[in-house]
Amino acid sequence: MVIVMRAHATPEELEAVKRRVEELGFRSHISTGSERTIIGVIGDERPVDPEVFEVVPGVERVVRILKPFRLASREFHPDDRVIELPGGARLGGGAVTVLAGPCAVESREQLEATAEVVSAAGVKVLRGGAFKPRTSPYSFQGLGEKGLILLREVADHHGMAVITEVVTPEDVPLVASYADILQIGARNMANYSLLQAAGAVSKPVLLKRGLGSTIDELIQAGEYILSNGNDQVALCERGIRTFETATRFTLDINAIPVLKGLTSLPVVVDPSHATGQATLVKPVALAGVAAGADGLIVEVHPNPAAALSDGPQSLTPPQFFDMMRDVRKVAEAVGRQVG
Amino acid sequence: MVIVMRAHATPEELEAVKRRVEELGFRSHISTGSERTIIGVIGDERPVDPEVFEVVPGVERVVRILKPFRLASREFHPDDRVIELPGGARLGGGAVTVLAGPCAVESREQLEATAEVVSAAGVKVLRGGAFKPRTSPYSFQGLGEKGLILLREVADHHGMAVITEVVTPEDVPLVASYADILQIGARNMANYSLLQAAGAVSKPVLLKRGLGSTIDELIQAGEYILSNGNDQVALCERGIRTFETATRFTLDINAIPVLKGLTSLPVVVDPSHATGQATLVKPVALAGVAAGADGLIVEVHPNPAAALSDGPQSLTPPQFFDMMRDVRKVAEAVGRQVG
Amino acid sequence: MVIVMRAHATPEELEAVKRRVEELGFRSHISTGSERTIIGVIGDERPVDPEVFEVVPGVERVVRILKPFRLASREFHPDDRVIELPGGARLGGGAVTVLAGPCAVESREQLEATAEVVSAAGVKVLRGGAFKPRTSPYSFQGLGEKGLILLREVADHHGMAVITEVVTPEDVPLVASYADILQIGARNMANYSLLQAAGAVSKPVLLKRGLGSTIDELIQAGEYILSNGNDQVALCERGIRTFETATRFTLDINAIPVLKGLTSLPVVVDPSHATGQATLVKPVALAGVAAGADGLIVEVHPNPAAALSDGPQSLTPPQFFDMMRDVRKVAEAVGRQVG
Amino acid sequence: MVIVMRAHATPEELEAVKRRVEELGFRSHISTGSERTIIGVIGDERPVDPEVFEVVPGVERVVRILKPFRLASREFHPDDRVIELPGGARLGGGAVTVLAGPCAVESREQLEATAEVVSAAGVKVLRGGAFKPRTSPYSFQGLGEKGLILLREVADHHGMAVITEVVTPEDVPLVASYADILQIGARNMANYSLLQAAGAVSKPVLLKRGLGSTIDELIQAGEYILSNGNDQVALCERGIRTFETATRFTLDINAIPVLKGLTSLPVVVDPSHATGQATLVKPVALAGVAAGADGLIVEVHPNPAAALSDGPQSLTPPQFFDMMRDVRKVAEAVGRQVG
Repeated sequence: MVIVMRAHATPEELEAVKRRVEELGFRSHISTGSERTIIGVIGDERPVDPEVFEVVPGVERVVRILKPFRLASREFHPDDRVIELPGGARLGGGAVTVLAGPCAVESREQLEATAEVVSAAGVKVLRGGAFKPRTSPYSFQGLGEKGLILLREVADHHGMAVITEVVTPEDVPLVASYADILQIGARNMANYSLLQAAGAVSKPVLLKRGLGSTIDELIQAGEYILSNGNDQVALCERGIRTFETATRFTLDINAIPVLKGLTSLPVVVDPSHATGQATLVKPVALAGVAAGADGLIVEVHPNPAAALSDGPQSLTPPQFFDMMRDVRKVAEAVGRQVG
Repeated sequence: MVIVMRAHATPEELEAVKRRVEELGFRSHISTGSERTIIGVIGDERPVDPEVFEVVPGVERVVRILKPFRLASREFHPDDRVIELPGGARLGGGAVTVLAGPCAVESREQLEATAEVVSAAGVKVLRGGAFKPRTSPYSFQGLGEKGLILLREVADHHGMAVITEVVTPEDVPLVASYADILQIGARNMANYSLLQAAGAVSKPVLLKRGLGSTIDELIQAGEYILSNGNDQVALCERGIRTFETATRFTLDINAIPVLKGLTSLPVVVDPSHATGQATLVKPVALAGVAAGADGLIVEVHPNPAAALSDGPQSLTPPQFFDMMRDVRKVAEAVGRQVG
Repeated sequence: MVIVMRAHATPEELEAVKRRVEELGFRSHISTGSERTIIGVIGDERPVDPEVFEVVPGVERVVRILKPFRLASREFHPDDRVIELPGGARLGGGAVTVLAGPCAVESREQLEATAEVVSAAGVKVLRGGAFKPRTSPYSFQGLGEKGLILLREVADHHGMAVITEVVTPEDVPLVASYADILQIGARNMANYSLLQAAGAVSKPVLLKRGLGSTIDELIQAGEYILSNGNDQVALCERGIRTFETATRFTLDINAIPVLKGLTSLPVVVDPSHATGQATLVKPVALAGVAAGADGLIVEVHPNPAAALSDGPQSLTPPQFFDMMRDVRKVAEAVGRQVG
Repeated sequence: MVIVMRAHATPEELEAVKRRVEELGFRSHISTGSERTIIGVIGDERPVDPEVFEVVPGVERVVRILKPFRLASREFHPDDRVIELPGGARLGGGAVTVLAGPCAVESREQLEATAEVVSAAGVKVLRGGAFKPRTSPYSFQGLGEKGLILLREVADHHGMAVITEVVTPEDVPLVASYADILQIGARNMANYSLLQAAGAVSKPVLLKRGLGSTIDELIQAGEYILSNGNDQVALCERGIRTFETATRFTLDINAIPVLKGLTSLPVVVDPSHATGQATLVKPVALAGVAAGADGLIVEVHPNPAAALSDGPQSLTPPQFFDMMRDVRKVAEAVGRQVG
C-alpha cells in the first residue's frame, strides 16, 4: 500500500503512521514530495484492510498496490484452471462449453423435452432451477428437492452433467448430492455464509457476479470459496445494473478479458439474464465467445409462452439450434472449439 | 397491466393474448390506436409477473399499472406503521430515533465505552455487529454468539434496546433470542431464505437496501417479511452503487420521501455506510432528518483508529455529541423530536 | 400514451384530463379497472412530452406507447440506411468498416506513419482529432485547423476518407470543408446547438453516445440531426459510465442489437474509449463485430508511449494488424466482410 | 504520482520509466517492495496526465496523489469564495440563497406572475430559460433573445438579479449582456468551448454537474472557467444518472460536503431537476440546506399544468411559500440565514 499524508500533516502524525505500519509487521518507506509525503508499506498487504491506516490522524488516503485476492489470481496460479465434468464437458482450458436448460424445473415433461433439444445440439451440461430466488414473494419459488431429483434423472438419461442453484448454506449438502456443479446466483454473490458452505464441498461452483458488484468483488467472492478449500470455481458475468433500461441488465463485455487477465478461473457468460430478451441472446452470446469466454449459460424452454419464469428470455428450440450453429462458427474464428 | 402489441400484430395474435388474459382470471379491454393496439388487463395484477404476457407472440411490452407489493404499501395500510422497542424507543410515528454503536463488537471494554457515550447522548438503541459480512475472506468476521451476549449485557446495563445483524436463516432464532431488532444487511437484501426466516419470528426487522437494488425491490423484499407474518419491518437507505468514487456509496436522498409516500413502514438512514468517511457523516445525517427519515443508524467507536472494521467512517465520542446536537435542531426545524 | 389516474382520483379530475387530451388534438379512451382508471391517448404521441399530462391533478403517471423518435426509427425506414464514403468505404448495408488512426493529430510524421499502417491493413477511413475535448484545461487541446489540413493531405495521399471531431457549432462549416464524416463526441451528444448545425450540412455524421445517456436519448440526438435535414447519421457505442472502475467505461454490448432493432442507422463500436486499455481493445472489438456492429473506430499510434493523448488505449502497428486479422475471421463467421 | 510497475518488470523497463519521469521535469524516487516496485514522481503533477506514464512498457498503473485541479481547490484558496450579485443576493459566505422562477420563459404574464410570487417569498434572483436544451427536437426550444429581454425587464421591475442558461459559445456575449449569472447546464458541463467562452466574460457562472460526471470532473470543468480568467464560479449538484428509476435523477447529497471540502466555490442544489416531481422538491431542498449548500435553484410556475416544460417538477406558489418557510427553519437550525 501507499499511504498519502494530508498537505499539512505534522511530523508527529507521520511518526504515528510509521509506528502503526511497523506494529502490523510491515516496513515503511517515506518519500517527501513537494506537496505531500507518501509512505510505502512494504510486505504482503493482501490480508490488511486499507482502513486500518485511513483512520490514523493525518492520513489523506491509502492506495492498494496489490489486488485484494491471492488464490484466485493469475499471479498465484499462472495456468488456466480447468474444471472437468462428468459426461465429458469441461470449463476452462480452451474449449467453449455451453450449459443450457430451462430457468426453472417445472415438470418431467418440460425438462425431458428441453434436455432432448439441448443434448441434440451438442450440449453436455443441463441447467435448471429447483430453488428459485424471486424478487416477488408471490412468484413461483421452484420445486425444491423434487426438482433436483428430476434434474438428476433426466440428465442421467441423456448422459449429461447437472448445474443447479443453491440459495442457502444448509441446502449445500443436499444440492451437492444431486448436482455436478453448484450455481451461486447474483443475489447471493455476497452471501458469505453460502460461499463458505460452498467452499466446504467437493463439487465445482459457478459463481455469478452480483448485479451491483465490481469485478474485484466478484473475484474476492471466488476467493472465499477457494480459501475454504474448494479449488473448482468458475466465474460468471451475467449483466450489471446501470442506468440503461432498454435491457434488463447491461452485460459488461469488458469484464471477460479483464477477468481472464486477473484470474486463472474459467469465465462464463449468461446472455439470457444479461439481456432479458430472447431476440438479444444470440448476438450477445456470440459477443461473449468472441471476447474470450470459456462458456455460455443459456435458458431454453420447449414452449417459452408457458414458462413459469423467465419466459421472455428463453430460447425456443429452433432459436437455440440457430444460436449453437453460430456459436460454433465464432468459436472457430477465435481458434476454439465448442466442447 | 397494459399490454402493448407490436406494430403489425395479427388479429390471431391479439386473440391469443386476450385468451391468455382470461385464462389467468382477468378481464381484457382492447383499445385500438393509430399505430398500436393496447390491451388493458382488469383485475389484481400484483401476483402476476408481466413476463407471462411479454412472452406471447405479437406482444411488444407490458406495463405494470399497480406496484408489485401490497402489504407494504401505503394504499393497503394508510397510517404510518410504528415499531415500539424496549427501553422506550420507537421507529415511525413522528419521532427521529437514533441507533448507534460500533460497527463490530470487539470486546466488552470497547462496547461498554461506546454504550456509555451514546446513552449519554440520549440514544436508546445500541447497534453492534457480531456476525460480520466482509468482502474479503481475510478480514475480521465478528465474535459470533459471544458478541451477542456482550451486546445484550451491555445494553441491559444501560437500559437500551439492541439491534444486530443476522446473515443466515439458521441463525435467525439465535440472534432473535438476544436482539430487539434484527438487521438484514445490504448484501442480504435479496437473500430470500433469510427474509422468509425473518418473517417467521416476532422481532422487528430493519431491512437495508441492496447496493444495486431499486426502491421497488427494497419494498418487495420488505413484502417477503410481511407476507411471512412479521408486520414489524423498517427500511433503511444506506447508499447505492453509482459511478461516483469520491465516496464509498451514494446516499439516495430522494428515496426518503419516495419511500414515505409509497409505504407506511418506518424509514431509517445510514450516513456511515453511505459515505464511508467520518467527516461526511454529520451533514448527511442532517440531510436525512431534513428529508423526513424516522431514524438514523450511526457508527461510533471510542477509538476509531483502533477499530477492527469501519474505522474511517466511525464517529469519535465528541463528533457524535456534536452530530446529536445538530440532529436535534434540524429535527425540531421540521417539527419532530429526537425520541 | 396511457395515462394512469391515482387510486382515488375524482370524476372531475378524470374529466379535466380527458379535456386536456382532446385540447391537444387526441382522442381519449377510458378503461376503468378494479383499482385504477386508465386513459388511452389515441393519435401520434411522438411530438408530445408526457409531462403535459403528468402535471394535471389526479394523474399518477403517464406511459409512452411509441418511442419518442420517428425519422431514426426502423418503423419509419425499414431498410438499413447506408452511408457511402469517398475511397470506397461504406457504413451500413452488411459490411464491417474499420475507421482507424491516432487519437489526436500531432504532426505530419505521426499521421503519415499511422495512415501507412492502417491503410496497409485495409482501412479506408482515417480518424484523427484536430479539436480535442479534454477533461483538464491543462491537457493538449489539439492542432485546430492545422490538424485538419494534415488529415486531408495525408488521407488524400492514401486515397482514404477522413473522419474528425467537431466540438462547436461555429466550426461545423470549417470541419465539413476538410472531413468526409463529422464526428460528434460523447461529451457533446446532448449539445443541441451542435446537433442542429451538423444537421444543416451535407456531410455524414458519426454521433457518439453520451457516457450518461440512454439508448433512447442517443437515438433522439440522432433525430435532431435527421430532422434538420441531414439523413446521413451513424450511431456509435463507446462505453457508458457505470460503477465498475476496472475499465475506463463499460461497453454496452447489448446496445448493438437493440440499436439495430430500433433504428435503421449504421452502428459503430469504439473499443478504444470503451476500455481505455490497449490489451482489451481486440477482444472487445471482436465482441462488437460478433454482436452485429457495422463498424469499428479504433485508435492506433506508431509509438503510443510518445502519444500526446490516449496513449494507453492506442494499438501499436503490430497489435492493429493482429486485431484486423481476427476481425476479418469473426466478420466472416457471422456472414459479413470487412469492407 | 506513484507509478506501480508490473510484477516482473525488467530493470530496463524501470530505467525507461525513470528516464521518462526526468524528461518531464520531475524527480523520481524508487521503492522496491516484496512484489512490486513503485516509483514516486516528485513535483507538481497537476498538468500531467497519468497516461503519459501508463503507456510506458512495464508499468501496471499510475496513481494520482494530487487532485487534477488547482485554482478551484481549497488548498489554493482556503477561504470561501463569495459571489456578490446585484439586488443584494450573494452566493457563498454563509448565507443560503434561493434562485427561483419558471423552467422556461413563456410570456411576460407568466414571468411577471412568477416573479411576484418568488419576490414576495424573499427571493432576490430570478431564474428562467430563454435557450432551452431539450432531449427531443420536437419540444419547445425557448423564446431566445425575446426571453432574455423579458427576464431583464421583469427582474428589474422587482429589483432582482437574473440567472439564465447559455448553450453555445457564440451566445455568451449576448446572454451576458442581459443576465447577472450565466448558467451552464448539465448537458453542457463538458462542452469545453462553452466553458472557455464563459471564462472570458466578467459575469459569474453557475455550472451544473453533468448527469454522468464525477465530482472531480465537475471541479475540473469549473477549473476551465477559472483558468480562462473568470474567478466567479459556483457549482451545482442537480442529480446524477443511476439505476434508480423512481425519480428522474438521483441527487448526490454526499457531493455537497465533499465539494465544500475540496473547493472554496459556492455550492448550489437543484431539487427540481434532481427529483422531477413537485412533491419531492421540498424534502430534498431541505436536505440540501441541512447538508451545507450555499443555495437552492428551484422551479416555480404560476400554473404548472399549463407549463411548456418541466411542469411536473414546478412548484405552485403555495408550495413554494411552504418550502421557503421550512428552508428558513432548517437554515437557522444549521446556523445560517436565507439571504
